[in-house]
Amino acid sequence: MNVIRYTPGPQDWAHHFGPAEPKISIAPGDVVQVATEDCFGGLVTSPSDLPSEVVPFEALNPVSGPFHVEGAEPGDALAVHFIDIVPSRNTAISSLFPHFGSLSPTHETALLAEPLPEKVWFYDLDLDRWTARFRALSSDFTLELPLDPMHGTIGVAPAAGESRLVMVPSTYGGNLDTPEMRAGTTLYLPVNTDGALLALGDGHARQGEGEVTGTGLECAMHTVFTVEVIKGAAPAWPRLENEHSIMSTGSIRPLEDAYRISQKDLVEWVTDLLPVDRFDAYQLVSQLGTAPVANVCDPNYTFVSRFPKSVLGTEQAYGGAHARLAAVAEEYRSANARIW
Amino acid sequence: MNVIRYTPGPQDWAHHFGPAEPKISIAPGDVVQVATEDCFGGLVTSPSDLPSEVVPFEALNPVSGPFHVEGAEPGDALAVHFIDIVPSRNTAISSLFPHFGSLSPTHETALLAEPLPEKVWFYDLDLDRWTARFRALSSDFTLELPLDPMHGTIGVAPAAGESRLVMVPSTYGGNLDTPEMRAGTTLYLPVNTDGALLALGDGHARQGEGEVTGTGLECAMHTVFTVEVIKGAAPAWPRLENEHSIMSTGSIRPLEDAYRISQKDLVEWVTDLLPVDRFDAYQLVSQLGTAPVANVCDPNYTFVSRFPKSVLGTEQAYGGAHARLAAVAEEYRSANARIW
Amino acid sequence: MNVIRYTPGPQDWAHHFGPAEPKISIAPGDVVQVATEDCFGGLVTSPSDLPSEVVPFEALNPVSGPFHVEGAEPGDALAVHFIDIVPSRNTAISSLFPHFGSLSPTHETALLAEPLPEKVWFYDLDLDRWTARFRALSSDFTLELPLDPMHGTIGVAPAAGESRLVMVPSTYGGNLDTPEMRAGTTLYLPVNTDGALLALGDGHARQGEGEVTGTGLECAMHTVFTVEVIKGAAPAWPRLENEHSIMSTGSIRPLEDAYRISQKDLVEWVTDLLPVDRFDAYQLVSQLGTAPVANVCDPNYTFVSRFPKSVLGTEQAYGGAHARLAAVAEEYRSANARIW
Amino acid sequence: MNVIRYTPGPQDWAHHFGPAEPKISIAPGDVVQVATEDCFGGLVTSPSDLPSEVVPFEALNPVSGPFHVEGAEPGDALAVHFIDIVPSRNTAISSLFPHFGSLSPTHETALLAEPLPEKVWFYDLDLDRWTARFRALSSDFTLELPLDPMHGTIGVAPAAGESRLVMVPSTYGGNLDTPEMRAGTTLYLPVNTDGALLALGDGHARQGEGEVTGTGLECAMHTVFTVEVIKGAAPAWPRLENEHSIMSTGSIRPLEDAYRISQKDLVEWVTDLLPVDRFDAYQLVSQLGTAPVANVCDPNYTFVSRFPKSVLGTEQAYGGAHARLAAVAEEYRSANARIW
Repeated sequence: MNVIRYTPGPQDWAHHFGPAEPKISIAPGDVVQVATEDCFGGLVTSPSDLPSEVVPFEALNPVSGPFHVEGAEPGDALAVHFIDIVPSRNTAISSLFPHFGSLSPTHETALLAEPLPEKVWFYDLDLDRWTARFRALSSDFTLELPLDPMHGTIGVAPAAGESRLVMVPSTYGGNLDTPEMRAGTTLYLPVNTDGALLALGDGHARQGEGEVTGTGLECAMHTVFTVEVIKGAAPAWPRLENEHSIMSTGSIRPLEDAYRISQKDLVEWVTDLLPVDRFDAYQLVSQLGTAPVANVCDPNYTFVSRFPKSVLGTEQAYGGAHARLAAVAEEYRSANARIW
Repeated sequence: MNVIRYTPGPQDWAHHFGPAEPKISIAPGDVVQVATEDCFGGLVTSPSDLPSEVVPFEALNPVSGPFHVEGAEPGDALAVHFIDIVPSRNTAISSLFPHFGSLSPTHETALLAEPLPEKVWFYDLDLDRWTARFRALSSDFTLELPLDPMHGTIGVAPAAGESRLVMVPSTYGGNLDTPEMRAGTTLYLPVNTDGALLALGDGHARQGEGEVTGTGLECAMHTVFTVEVIKGAAPAWPRLENEHSIMSTGSIRPLEDAYRISQKDLVEWVTDLLPVDRFDAYQLVSQLGTAPVANVCDPNYTFVSRFPKSVLGTEQAYGGAHARLAAVAEEYRSANARIW
Repeated sequence: MNVIRYTPGPQDWAHHFGPAEPKISIAPGDVVQVATEDCFGGLVTSPSDLPSEVVPFEALNPVSGPFHVEGAEPGDALAVHFIDIVPSRNTAISSLFPHFGSLSPTHETALLAEPLPEKVWFYDLDLDRWTARFRALSSDFTLELPLDPMHGTIGVAPAAGESRLVMVPSTYGGNLDTPEMRAGTTLYLPVNTDGALLALGDGHARQGEGEVTGTGLECAMHTVFTVEVIKGAAPAWPRLENEHSIMSTGSIRPLEDAYRISQKDLVEWVTDLLPVDRFDAYQLVSQLGTAPVANVCDPNYTFVSRFPKSVLGTEQAYGGAHARLAAVAEEYRSANARIW
Repeated sequence: MNVIRYTPGPQDWAHHFGPAEPKISIAPGDVVQVATEDCFGGLVTSPSDLPSEVVPFEALNPVSGPFHVEGAEPGDALAVHFIDIVPSRNTAISSLFPHFGSLSPTHETALLAEPLPEKVWFYDLDLDRWTARFRALSSDFTLELPLDPMHGTIGVAPAAGESRLVMVPSTYGGNLDTPEMRAGTTLYLPVNTDGALLALGDGHARQGEGEVTGTGLECAMHTVFTVEVIKGAAPAWPRLENEHSIMSTGSIRPLEDAYRISQKDLVEWVTDLLPVDRFDAYQLVSQLGTAPVANVCDPNYTFVSRFPKSVLGTEQAYGGAHARLAAVAEEYRSANARIW
């Protein structure tokens, strides 16, 4: 088991998904330990730091990478399996950005009304109890929330030479902001360029579905992942798989189009996995699918559509890639009591 | 315990939410046993019956009612608690309607492309095993699905004298088509007219989130419910509560507006229940909320936004209405081994 | 020429499109002189009257009617030709309603942000100069605007027994709020019930495209129109025709679906009128069509899609109904120097 | 008058708006004669050429440029005035692309239904008569359409280092696809990088509003333009000005958000130009604005919102930039009987 550690500093972070020099190269089967910074670039250090004042726009949402993945070529699927995602600080930060979040006027839903005020919440993390402490700004109310760490942003270089800001989710991944991107999950991304150029960041110690304010419990992370390249199997949109479900994503506006994309992709995926045509698969998704929204705040909105693996029988997506990667994860965890 | 049974025939069904003569009158605390027909008006009796041929448009989606609820006045909340929802036939039906469903051109998303073909699936129900048997149309593949019965359609008369077809979900309830409308759940509706004029139907033996084809496992039901009137407490939009969650709904197009409505209502509800202002509540919903879509096929799309009751401490919505109604349900179930 | 005058008072106004007792009956070919009240029900009488305080919700947007149209049966088209629309007062009123208008949080696009403030503008009308005088609230700036009177609201009873508030535009007409509804224009509506039950109101002395604030120059009107019934020719959505254009409308959310409905209907209309198939018609609409938005503020948004009559050659929509009705208008105007 | 001619070949075309080496440098006041290729890269040469077969995706919609504009710095407005736009071939081409156009299932509005068939129309252009000849594919019907040449695509490098495909319209311009981009019009773009990196292409011999099929009369062009740099005056979104109107654009999905962006920008522009606050400006836009849709087919939808210059009195946008540029155009036309 080849274990690679990558701990970039501010000078190393990337802010785009697109053509770039890779920072390091990794091979399928390698286990990568990577440090990621929070979405504020680590520049919000006290509750009195307003992000709009201390974080330049171009410093927002840094990602670690890009990683060149050996053997990944256009048309392949890159399977990324999260072995572990652990907060690397004892605080997480959430905020209301002006002109951001589903319930505020934004630059996209442009109104003459005033945006919501900017506010910052600091959460104390207790990694032993695996909890975060919410402290109300308007009273002395506090609440303990369970941790459920995830990465908001992970993706590869887009197709056709585009370069997109890290805030955007789309076909190549990006800022999907779904709580499903947790340890134990495999993400399937389409490879658009040689080496794929994988990058990730924007850890959340937890996040609700929809990320309605525009922020989760934003947190620097120590993350461990491994990858596999599946030749010629590029999905049209990012897909996920965990122990229980296969999941398709769609990221676009309006939200019903994100839903449509993810549902259509899921119907096609089920058609591939069960001995039925697409109309039967459509029927099954209609009865068995669950559909939690991911984000309704980013430049594209993201939907996740899930289908239970229990009804797939012995059929496995991508020839069992998830099981293989989970075995690597198991081997790593057996050998490493702590992720870092 | 006053138990009322209402088993309407075709001549009794209603097809609108709006001004109408109530069929019967019920009082808070009464337990009502009601039979409901499937969304096809019972007219699809074999897999070769195409709904578009055998069901006149005006016969679709009949509801049982309306019920006059004693003491319900405009501005009140009507709490409806589902004690039991049990299929009353041993088959459920699902179909592709032309010009209906999220992944077909429709009358609302009007394209020049051809709609999907009409198809009908019959499911055999096994009430002992509590399962439904899917049989593929394109192969001999079959699958056993767990039952999870619910009502797609339940509502009261709309405000301001409107009369809406039963296919529409909106502020007064209607065709919300969420799987959350199952036994054990309390629905809170705004009362707009004296007596509320409650009606319900469109049972599904189960349904996925989004109801992507436009149909669940459509099924006639034997349903038991009880009601309570909460004076002056009308919610802006239908709310639900079960053992685990409080839930707000929003029904409109585009889907992001349905999400916004349900999230804003949930933020306001949490603000009422916790000692925090609405910005703290917004923050908590952003981290703890779940947001499964209900339907993306009806004339309005419906979102459900959930918040865990575990963090509410001793605070109870509507002064504990759900607990009181659940106690009535418990008493009923103790006294009645079978619902019918 | 049978001329009928109808001047309803507050007790006569209607507030729904739906089943109702007709106020009077008219016959095809009759010329009807009708008085309509402004959208505030005439209750805003000075700039210090805030509509939200002086106009009960149920009094908003009264319409005159419904008129029973002799011979109109379900499936027919009702052609309504506006002979003249003239302000009946020397002031028009415009306002910002809280929670209304495209650039404010609304009940439909629900945000936590504050709505825009309520404001009222009074315009002095000069019917000799055919102008309205805008007076700024924030300075002493004034401006003279040309009049272009129109009706925001006109429709018939909806299909399938629905009853909708007058604020809603849909398949049956209603609150379309397009400046195209001016004198000289013929409106084609689908007849859903015997007698059609035509009603109209919500006159605007002028209005921009989109009605971005939610109000035009709201004004009581003296209006003259005539009607024709075209058997079996019900359009799916309201259509308009004037000297220059045929026009299709679509009213729904999101706005792209309103656009799609109106464009698809226009493509089908052009297919009927030219010796080409629908793909050629689609091509022609793509190159020759104009598409001004009507309203982006009402419960449904309305698009108007226009096609130039100049390329239709001798082909006439609805067998020349517009020309016949324009001839009636010409005859009426020849005989009546003033409309009232 | 410094006149520069730039006639790129296939090896020179650009396919992104973003960081790139400029092809040539131009100075404010220069008159530039530029040749642009059609959106098919010139590869559709007969009606039997299906674009999906003969045009690789990466070859679609080439633009000529980028041009480095001397003195243009981030924060400036780049004013581009079209002196002339003339077809450089005697044919124009229009087509139905699979999965493209407002009335077909697309990759964004993803359905299970089949897309519309691919079709190609060739128009003969008569530059003397200034017309194009439509020939139906389904019959022998033909029609003569007036020319109204325009550029669908023109823009600068996006902000924050993004690189976008030329098919996309956004804040930096791009594939706006509005018929307003005709000779005599001035376009104001925000400068995001030193030299602006202006590029343009995608000429249409004419186009309807909305470009419903996704294509206009696609045509190679000989175009003449001149530029001015207005220091520190970058608009948030592209703006246009012609003899009659100032115009704001917004490009995003859903279409109501594109409308909102363009209307809000127009309200702010009117606030700058008239001695009123933004609420008075909002009122005036609501009554005097026109709002033709530009495209409802591209990755972002584009709206144009217009306001009449007649009511602006002596106030001139950008200190009279349009008048200055129109004077340059007049001088050029006086000196050059033909544009090429």
